Amino acid sequence: MTERSIGQVMHKWAEDLFPINRSLTGEGVRQTLNYLKKILPDLEIKSVPTGYEAFDWTVPEEWSVSEAFIEDEHGVRIVDFKVNNLHLVGYSVSVDEWLTFDELNAHLYSLPEQPDAIPYVTSYYTKRWGFCLTHSQRQQLNKDGKYHVVIKSEHKKGVLNYAELVLPGVSEKEVFFSTYVCHPSMANNELSGPVVTTALAQWLMGVQDRRYTYRFVFIPETIGSIVYISKNLKHLKQKVFAGFNVTCIGDDRCYSYLPSRAGDTYSDKIAQHVLKHIDPDYKKYSWLDRGSDERQYCAPGVDLPVATIMRSKYGEYPEYHTSLDDLSLVTPGGLEGGFNALKAAVEVIENDCYPKINVLCEPQLGKRGLYPTISEKGSADKVRDMMNFISYCDGEHSLFDISEIINIPFKSSITYIHKLSASGLIKC
Amino acid sequence: MTERSIGQVMHKWAEDLFPINRSLTGEGVRQTLNYLKKILPDLEIKSVPTGYEAFDWTVPEEWSVSEAFIEDEHGVRIVDFKVNNLHLVGYSVSVDEWLTFDELNAHLYSLPEQPDAIPYVTSYYTKRWGFCLTHSQRQQLNKDGKYHVVIKSEHKKGVLNYAELVLPGVSEKEVFFSTYVCHPSMANNELSGPVVTTALAQWLMGVQDRRYTYRFVFIPETIGSIVYISKNLKHLKQKVFAGFNVTCIGDDRCYSYLPSRAGDTYSDKIAQHVLKHIDPDYKKYSWLDRGSDERQYCAPGVDLPVATIMRSKYGEYPEYHTSLDDLSLVTPGGLEGGFNALKAAVEVIENDCYPKINVLCEPQLGKRGLYPTISEKGSADKVRDMMNFISYCDGEHSLFDISEIINIPFKSSITYIHKLSASGLIKC
Amino acid sequence: MTERSIGQVMHKWAEDLFPINRSLTGEGVRQTLNYLKKILPDLEIKSVPTGYEAFDWTVPEEWSVSEAFIEDEHGVRIVDFKVNNLHLVGYSVSVDEWLTFDELNAHLYSLPEQPDAIPYVTSYYTKRWGFCLTHSQRQQLNKDGKYHVVIKSEHKKGVLNYAELVLPGVSEKEVFFSTYVCHPSMANNELSGPVVTTALAQWLMGVQDRRYTYRFVFIPETIGSIVYISKNLKHLKQKVFAGFNVTCIGDDRCYSYLPSRAGDTYSDKIAQHVLKHIDPDYKKYSWLDRGSDERQYCAPGVDLPVATIMRSKYGEYPEYHTSLDDLSLVTPGGLEGGFNALKAAVEVIENDCYPKINVLCEPQLGKRGLYPTISEKGSADKVRDMMNFISYCDGEHSLFDISEIINIPFKSSITYIHKLSASGLIKC
Repeated sequence: MTERSIGQVMHKWAEDLFPINRSLTGEGVRQTLNYLKKILPDLEIKSVPTGYEAFDWTVPEEWSVSEAFIEDEHGVRIVDFKVNNLHLVGYSVSVDEWLTFDELNAHLYSLPEQPDAIPYVTSYYTKRWGFCLTHSQRQQLNKDGKYHVVIKSEHKKGVLNYAELVLPGVSEKEVFFSTYVCHPSMANNELSGPVVTTALAQWLMGVQDRRYTYRFVFIPETIGSIVYISKNLKHLKQKVFAGFNVTCIGDDRCYSYLPSRAGDTYSDKIAQHVLKHIDPDYKKYSWLDRGSDERQYCAPGVDLPVATIMRSKYGEYPEYHTSLDDLSLVTPGGLEGGFNALKAAVEVIENDCYPKINVLCEPQLGKRGLYPTISEKGSADKVRDMMNFISYCDGEHSLFDISEIINIPFKSSITYIHKLSASGLIKC
Repeated sequence: MTERSIGQVMHKWAEDLFPINRSLTGEGVRQTLNYLKKILPDLEIKSVPTGYEAFDWTVPEEWSVSEAFIEDEHGVRIVDFKVNNLHLVGYSVSVDEWLTFDELNAHLYSLPEQPDAIPYVTSYYTKRWGFCLTHSQRQQLNKDGKYHVVIKSEHKKGVLNYAELVLPGVSEKEVFFSTYVCHPSMANNELSGPVVTTALAQWLMGVQDRRYTYRFVFIPETIGSIVYISKNLKHLKQKVFAGFNVTCIGDDRCYSYLPSRAGDTYSDKIAQHVLKHIDPDYKKYSWLDRGSDERQYCAPGVDLPVATIMRSKYGEYPEYHTSLDDLSLVTPGGLEGGFNALKAAVEVIENDCYPKINVLCEPQLGKRGLYPTISEKGSADKVRDMMNFISYCDGEHSLFDISEIINIPFKSSITYIHKLSASGLIKC
Repeated sequence: MTERSIGQVMHKWAEDLFPINRSLTGEGVRQTLNYLKKILPDLEIKSVPTGYEAFDWTVPEEWSVSEAFIEDEHGVRIVDFKVNNLHLVGYSVSVDEWLTFDELNAHLYSLPEQPDAIPYVTSYYTKRWGFCLTHSQRQQLNKDGKYHVVIKSEHKKGVLNYAELVLPGVSEKEVFFSTYVCHPSMANNELSGPVVTTALAQWLMGVQDRRYTYRFVFIPETIGSIVYISKNLKHLKQKVFAGFNVTCIGDDRCYSYLPSRAGDTYSDKIAQHVLKHIDPDYKKYSWLDRGSDERQYCAPGVDLPVATIMRSKYGEYPEYHTSLDDLSLVTPGGLEGGFNALKAAVEVIENDCYPKINVLCEPQLGKRGLYPTISEKGSADKVRDMMNFISYCDGEHSLFDISEIINIPFKSSITYIHKLSASGLIKC
């Protein structure tokens, strides 16, 4: 038996979670969080009730759907929520009526420019009902026909669920990861976020002597992060010195970065360093391009150092918010690339320090076996990176700063620091 | 009757003022200032006497001309000051002589590369006489002829005039505008400056509850600004927080900006913001390209925050300092564009503030009718600028800063602040 | 008799010094320093003994060679140290053996890509012997032959020599120049450094009332600078405010600059200013490209403001570290260009000041004969640089700052300051 790669493991989790009908609240979120708790046993599933007030917002009622379909005059089901939960506009109210084509048409959503995609549409804060379907299918509907539309849904008092996992470290200072679990059957946006975050937490559980404390939250987007912040703001502002919003991190087309509002936090610098060394052509977005939970984490007065490392960013790939954002778009390799980028960011955080050389002038590396014993044209080039590294070990530049200045991956700096610490030349 | 546009009104003023023979001192300046006082009744016309010492300079004598011409042997007037006051070198002394061509030629000024232009020449600080004419005409002069040159001019003790208008505001802090009235019959450099400044003052007179005090000065260039600074330096340094030198602001070929010596004052930032949103291709000059009264206002030890917004800059358009700089070059549209740029700068100054949102995290805009009630692909784009605007309402970025960061005209920021203040979400 | 140019004088010195077999220590260094002492009588030749410990390093034994050659079976000398001292690997131990071609070949060094060049190879810190030869010659060796290799060399306790010259100035603050004297018969790297430094010291000896103290050191590279720093660190850190490492400054192909580790010291700024005005296309290297004694002078904790002005940089020209780096590559013109660049740097240091104008607003230059008396189109351009210069004489910008801002050579600023000081307008 071949051991599965971490990418394959994550992809399998995404397959299991894909069919669940997630929304801001309700059974879908609970099923999802319970699934993740099996992987991360210390994950704590929490809730706040409908009507809970968080800053300017109020937790909505829970929404559940027992069935939802459109039938034609012959009883043929044209559109059925059971086939794809994107067919139903999120938060749709109940209906049971016979309609003309024109009456029905006012409640239909499709994408003329993507005729084979079912769009993802929600109406969380205004009561509505509607169906989403491919534009191809919509165009084939009989304009003279009658249609039976049935939605059996319920909006009732309940709870908004979210989950939290804290992995303590030597320091109480925290690194924060947030991802969201409110999207129905779509893969890059947004099963990639929860599965990569889960894999990252699982990896960190196995790391001995974690230097820092790690906090992971799995929440519904927007209302979830607002609720979470409203309950934890003081703690987060005191403890969190780096953080990442984990979203759209599963396809394999590109890497991208979206800054925090401040733009120059430690998280921002690390994200850019890590991505540059994975893919020099990674895409840099601006705060003005944002659209996920960094909107809350970096809002005025909240101001957490939360940056975003992504593969293809929400809104920027054609399959975004449609049924085409599926598990063929998100691949084991895509997920693994995203996981590795975040892991590399953690490795920076865990290993950064201010190295200081303890001799004046250059050390005599030859006598320590770290320098070519013969000097000929070009011989110095072989140790150039290491000599550059040493030249900045002044106790004022961090390992991260040095990696940036001499333009080597942080991983290489770790190698140098190990080699030079072993020689007793440098302390970090 | 159609109401005339402000551009047409300014152009008419320029037409009225064009024929006057202005110089540093004398009747021409007085006629000009008296004309402007009819439009701005509170304009105060002031004077300092010949011999008045201002820093390193001394106010010169008044110069007046009763007639000035060149006649040929047949009594034909070849060149006559009455036809165009540029024909006479400014500050020419009296002369009444018969000269050979060669003797005459040493006193003639023309432009070989612009054969149809009469150049503008002055000799304020060395006694001289001379005539300016088109190069075409000069080349047709009979080299064997005799010429009768007559200049009846007078240099005598008198005064240097300038005018000042102060429009008080709620704050004693001042915005300063300076323009000059010493150029004879030329239009962009320099009737455009006085007429646009006059229109701006007239508009501000009608603005209710001016937040700041506005000070306008109409002066002869260089000696005028030096005299003005010598009398008002302490006051100006205490009160003026933004200022503009108004010159070359009447043609319609381009917009341009010349910085203060410091280069990064509030005036500089506003000028660049305003021009960028009027014309992304506006020309940016450097302090090293200067040549107008910013030389005095920004001199070491004076250091007022005075920037310059222009249309075609002095020295940079072919008609500059010739008879071709006339009222066909300066147009109603050109003047109106210049006026609007300065008005937009004043609107920034009057409306700038530090907006602060009074909820944590993003506000729930849906319940206030400010957000689409349905979420589908692209729906967030419709409110993106407003959401970006809100994201910087942290009490630390000014309305101006935010406009710059999110790259929208300040006017749009005013719209957002009105809308969001009305919703009670933001205070400025 | 025509007087020789300084370039010719320096080239003659280099010719005299070229044949000497220099190494880190020993007779070659002593002969070289004694030669220079004839030109600079106050040069002090100093020494530290073998075994002297300087930070992480130990002064090695002296190395001397009486003969070194390879003979073939017929007694023909194929390679002889007497012909070119590069033929012998530096610090080679003694040997006297008959070898097969294969045995010999393991001790030979040549450059396949430069078949006519003898490479420069040393093995200072590991005992070895070897010969360097052209690749052409190596390829003609008889693979079936026998070879007699003889090296009569000695490693014994002795001293490491270096020399120092201090030219006192009005201020105890010091300008520091360092160059190295350990390379055998090569010209750009490295006889150009000692001869240009010598010429510079000679010139400065003749400068009346030197404002600053000048310190010149002639040392073996690396071990020499480390020894020198170990003996003088406190003094250097207290006194030296500008310094230059002088190397590779004799060919005439380009100019180049390598920064100090800090990158923005006064020396760095001056070096860039001077080179920009000599050659706008001069090459800018980075600290990461370094490879000479700035490695020691700028090491963490040493941190002297030492920048490097070069012609073709070590490692960047094909003849580097081979017998082709000879006195046809280094020319009188090349040396003179390098000398002039360093001299210009010294002229900045000696003449820099903070000029302040003593009138407010612009001065009336006309009455001082410094401004055109007639104002016509373009007349201001003739005095534009001077007017720009004056506009920054605010006591806050140095003469150097002003030269940079208005983009004129420092020399021109000196001219202006003389002219304006004479008029009593500006004090420096």
